[in-house]
Amino acid sequence: MSHLTRHPRILFVLSVVALAALLTVVINPWDGAQAQGSADWQSVVQERGLTDEDIRAAVKTYMPSGSYDEYVMFASGGHAGQVFAIGLPSMRLLRTIAVFTPEPWQGYGFGVGNEVLEGGQIEGRDILWGDTHHPALSETEGDYDGEWLFINDKANGRVAVIDLRDFETKQIVNNPLYLNDHGGTFVTPNTEYIIEGGQYAMPWGGRYAPLDEYEETYAGMLTVWKFDREAGRIDPSRSFAIELPPYWQDLCDAGKLVTDGWIFCNTFNTELALGGIEEGNPPFEAGASRDTTDYMHLINLDAAIEVYEAGDTEEIEGMPVIRLETALQNNLMYLTPEPRSPHGVDVAPQGDFLVVSGKLDPHVTIYSFQNILDAIAAGPTETDQYNVPILALEDTMEAQVEVGLGPLHTQFDNQGYAYTSLFLDTAVARWSMGGENYRPDDGWALQGTIPVHYNVGHIATAEGDTVSPDGNWLVSLNKWSVDRFLSTGPLLPQNLQLVDISQPGDQMQLLYDMPITAGEPHYAQIIKADKLNTWEVYPEIGWDPLSQSVSENAVQPGEEGVERDGNNVTVRMTAVRSHFNPEHVEIRQGDHVTWTITNIERARDATHGFAIPYYGINLSIEPGETITFEFDATRDGVFTCYCTEFCSALHLEMTGYMLVEPEE
Amino acid sequence: MSHLTRHPRILFVLSVVALAALLTVVINPWDGAQAQGSADWQSVVQERGLTDEDIRAAVKTYMPSGSYDEYVMFASGGHAGQVFAIGLPSMRLLRTIAVFTPEPWQGYGFGVGNEVLEGGQIEGRDILWGDTHHPALSETEGDYDGEWLFINDKANGRVAVIDLRDFETKQIVNNPLYLNDHGGTFVTPNTEYIIEGGQYAMPWGGRYAPLDEYEETYAGMLTVWKFDREAGRIDPSRSFAIELPPYWQDLCDAGKLVTDGWIFCNTFNTELALGGIEEGNPPFEAGASRDTTDYMHLINLDAAIEVYEAGDTEEIEGMPVIRLETALQNNLMYLTPEPRSPHGVDVAPQGDFLVVSGKLDPHVTIYSFQNILDAIAAGPTETDQYNVPILALEDTMEAQVEVGLGPLHTQFDNQGYAYTSLFLDTAVARWSMGGENYRPDDGWALQGTIPVHYNVGHIATAEGDTVSPDGNWLVSLNKWSVDRFLSTGPLLPQNLQLVDISQPGDQMQLLYDMPITAGEPHYAQIIKADKLNTWEVYPEIGWDPLSQSVSENAVQPGEEGVERDGNNVTVRMTAVRSHFNPEHVEIRQGDHVTWTITNIERARDATHGFAIPYYGINLSIEPGETITFEFDATRDGVFTCYCTEFCSALHLEMTGYMLVEPEE
Repeated sequence: MSHLTRHPRILFVLSVVALAALLTVVINPWDGAQAQGSADWQSVVQERGLTDEDIRAAVKTYMPSGSYDEYVMFASGGHAGQVFAIGLPSMRLLRTIAVFTPEPWQGYGFGVGNEVLEGGQIEGRDILWGDTHHPALSETEGDYDGEWLFINDKANGRVAVIDLRDFETKQIVNNPLYLNDHGGTFVTPNTEYIIEGGQYAMPWGGRYAPLDEYEETYAGMLTVWKFDREAGRIDPSRSFAIELPPYWQDLCDAGKLVTDGWIFCNTFNTELALGGIEEGNPPFEAGASRDTTDYMHLINLDAAIEVYEAGDTEEIEGMPVIRLETALQNNLMYLTPEPRSPHGVDVAPQGDFLVVSGKLDPHVTIYSFQNILDAIAAGPTETDQYNVPILALEDTMEAQVEVGLGPLHTQFDNQGYAYTSLFLDTAVARWSMGGENYRPDDGWALQGTIPVHYNVGHIATAEGDTVSPDGNWLVSLNKWSVDRFLSTGPLLPQNLQLVDISQPGDQMQLLYDMPITAGEPHYAQIIKADKLNTWEVYPEIGWDPLSQSVSENAVQPGEEGVERDGNNVTVRMTAVRSHFNPEHVEIRQGDHVTWTITNIERARDATHGFAIPYYGINLSIEPGETITFEFDATRDGVFTCYCTEFCSALHLEMTGYMLVEPEE
Repeated sequence: MSHLTRHPRILFVLSVVALAALLTVVINPWDGAQAQGSADWQSVVQERGLTDEDIRAAVKTYMPSGSYDEYVMFASGGHAGQVFAIGLPSMRLLRTIAVFTPEPWQGYGFGVGNEVLEGGQIEGRDILWGDTHHPALSETEGDYDGEWLFINDKANGRVAVIDLRDFETKQIVNNPLYLNDHGGTFVTPNTEYIIEGGQYAMPWGGRYAPLDEYEETYAGMLTVWKFDREAGRIDPSRSFAIELPPYWQDLCDAGKLVTDGWIFCNTFNTELALGGIEEGNPPFEAGASRDTTDYMHLINLDAAIEVYEAGDTEEIEGMPVIRLETALQNNLMYLTPEPRSPHGVDVAPQGDFLVVSGKLDPHVTIYSFQNILDAIAAGPTETDQYNVPILALEDTMEAQVEVGLGPLHTQFDNQGYAYTSLFLDTAVARWSMGGENYRPDDGWALQGTIPVHYNVGHIATAEGDTVSPDGNWLVSLNKWSVDRFLSTGPLLPQNLQLVDISQPGDQMQLLYDMPITAGEPHYAQIIKADKLNTWEVYPEIGWDPLSQSVSENAVQPGEEGVERDGNNVTVRMTAVRSHFNPEHVEIRQGDHVTWTITNIERARDATHGFAIPYYGINLSIEPGETITFEFDATRDGVFTCYCTEFCSALHLEMTGYMLVEPEE
């Protein structure tokens, strides 16, 4: 504490102040001329009234300058349309990754990544926001490998691919069958496929059909996107979908280890409620939770791939679809009852159990995959109205544990415990898994709960949905913060709370409240930080982050210039501290301009911005990066193009004039 | 530490583990079945190797759940175009306020606040990002009053108004004279006026003029926006501008107390360099810093207002402008030399001194306002090439303090110290103010420096630019973070560092590193949290946040419905946990739809979202709020409109179907 060693000066100042107080003489007008707080930590603790528990939380989560967090949590951004990377245990937001929504700090949609956003168009229309729900890290043998991240857009039925070498979105695919999704993204254990389940049933392609044709015309869907890891892209030409009954799909999970090759999806509204409160019907909230059970879908993905590869599909809106009838003929799908209105099915680390919780039932329900296989072998005796075979709950269920009110989502640790969020109790329950691979001595039993603040949705534990969870940390993704933070008006942040789960039994400690703003994280995954292999700068000067190779447009020093071909102008520019070259760009109103800038810096963090006023251009050009953008020079005038990322002491001087001569 | 009291179970578990290790028998496959860390804080400190200084930093900044930060820092978001509200001392981001860039979590630009963004159009063109630099809190008698916040858009020359009752942007005004700004926003001591200075000289209106007409056609500007506090809006009809020489204006500050009625603005590029590295000219970075001094502008605002009110202005692009010649005739403006390429002039708390630092000079230069008045009275003997009178530096200067390399910005505390950021030294210097109102015994002298990481731009101290700074905390707004955080690829966050300045002399402690992403904060102001009076919910059901009164469109329960008038459809809807009413909206392709939703909740944090897929609509409807939006139903189909803000256990069921029947 070198700056805070007791110094003779303190005593001197204090004695002067004491003297002044005694004589009621004002030495100077600054009422705080004395030291304002304590120099030693013990006095700070006393002044602030911190408990031992507070001190433990403080020293568990505090990161001295320059020390690194142990984990990175990738959280969806909800209707912000982005993804957040958050360091644990400090709970600091390390990076916002722009995905579905333009974001000018990254230049995304303002000259950078415009092609990616265009890939997310629906029938040629720009869709410039998304509702991201469920991020999925790429996996190798069921464990995170730190290479790729996928995320869905619930609002518009889209999926995005993020490259974790540079934390940038590389691709958005639009599902042509559907205008929403929810049961995704989840990956198969080696990331061959990315799963996207629907949510609200609709006619194929979201085309029109009246609600009185709901039962026969509306459909549920599960899309199996092929991921080409070499190319770093989803390959729609090797992807397909499976038609499901027009229930509302909720969350899915991919099997692992013994369940590798299977997909499990929850549903709700198996009642086929149509809502219509304004006509005196029960509203959806009542109609869709009328029955005591909904159905979990058990889908044999390996068999479905065989059916797809055999061509037994129908092309709908350009997508090969395994129709429901075909699926049933090929024994691709079974149902088993689950407590009504569930949110999430979660496959245990060994792949052997599936955990489901209906939000209106105080239990978690554990299914054994062996039971399911046995029940399939025995032959189901029932079907639903769409002829999908139903496996009886008593045959598939392994156990139930009463955990509390509003159970929602389950994660796992390395001690054989599971954790379930309790929305209505606003708490997280820890319970022991009684299976022989976990804590058979404790059996299937509640171990303890910890209150959270407030209304927890999903939870995330460190690597808690992989084949080898790490334990240690749990984050509760709370939907409401209410009184936890200073008021910021009627719209409040969500609250991500860090919980220490390193101790056994009922011992869990709430460590940290993190407000999160500009988004509502729904789901998150927490990866050990040393699994990430990000680039510090782009590998070579002239790098195109979309192709992840040197761009053919790259501008090397000496190659700068402005060329004209009729009304087409090409600008070739370099950026380096602290100037652009060229600094003058003279064009004419009516020109179409294609402009390339290469940042020729090699120093880490030597990013340059580049803004053109009025024309809506703002780039983030990272060290080595090349960006090409285009625009039509519709307005004449003098435009000062400048570096928007503070780069050097002469950053303000890093500017240039673009002069657009008016049309005659 | 109730969850962590030593429990007999721990010992039991540990002994089982010890036994297992001894016998090399695997009890279960979970290698972490024992407790993974220490239950008491002392062991955590030891395991993590934390020093006493670290512990002090941890316990100074840690906020136990539900305890509130003492201060709120409003930081600009740079080219993210937004404003950030950050709690101190925890350095947690409490709220992102969408200003110039659409942001769907807040619904801003996606059905909410669209009129505000339209106000920021330039010549009818949407400008959907901004480069926010300098937030200004409203003041009463030179002290923050917590009511309003203003912010500029450097990229496009605009100013926004934020209401701190609900942390929402209410107005964007576009400066018709200019396509950039930098010397704003700053307010006069009672917020009668908001000051916006330009940056890069340009012809009026940003129209075309070749660079060889620079000296006579390009101009500098200072705009004085009238703020109508009653209306909560800038009133352009009572605003005016002052023409300045075509130097590049940098930052301005408004006078206070003895300098009330004056405005001070820095400049750079008084060399009138034109750049053009591609033609063999010196680049701007060299040309604009050729001379050893630039000019501070001393502007008599009170006198300028009199000239404006007397009508001695010329209307340019719809704005009354006091031309340079008129300004000189009326003695509105003087220049005095300052070290070259300064960034910021800062008025001392008593208004008596002005502090300037040229980035290429190791000193801060302190000017005395009394000296300036004396020099004016004595009569300047020199002018610049635009006939602006120059007051000699030796007449206006009070003192210089050598603080280090790259001095940039100065703030003040309540101990009579000033703090100056040092970009090149990447440090913050503390120096004593020798004036009689401050620390006359210490004189004008450097007291100490503290390293920061890295490349500090602005700094902010608690209420540090008001008439009564609070001291205690300083935040260093660093431009680069380099190695401070886990790598997030080539684009790294900025680093806001919290420094404890409560101790005197050379004692300053770095407490906390906060990465900040999706933006580059340039400038910030720190207000005592208890000065903010935000609303917890909107005052009445049916509230329109733009007019801050009950909307005439408000929908009360029972008033819901869908009405048709030709192709115009009006939807009137309510939202309450957990349904919309109506749940079915049936319209026809080609309809123009006007849709109002009222959130009839009164509970704090009971916000509902409302999304319409494909149509790009997403609302955030806070408790009591009414929103009206419009769109053309161009595509037929089935659209599930749903609540995007997780509101209840049956949130997923809070949905409805919008059916758009195709045109025949």
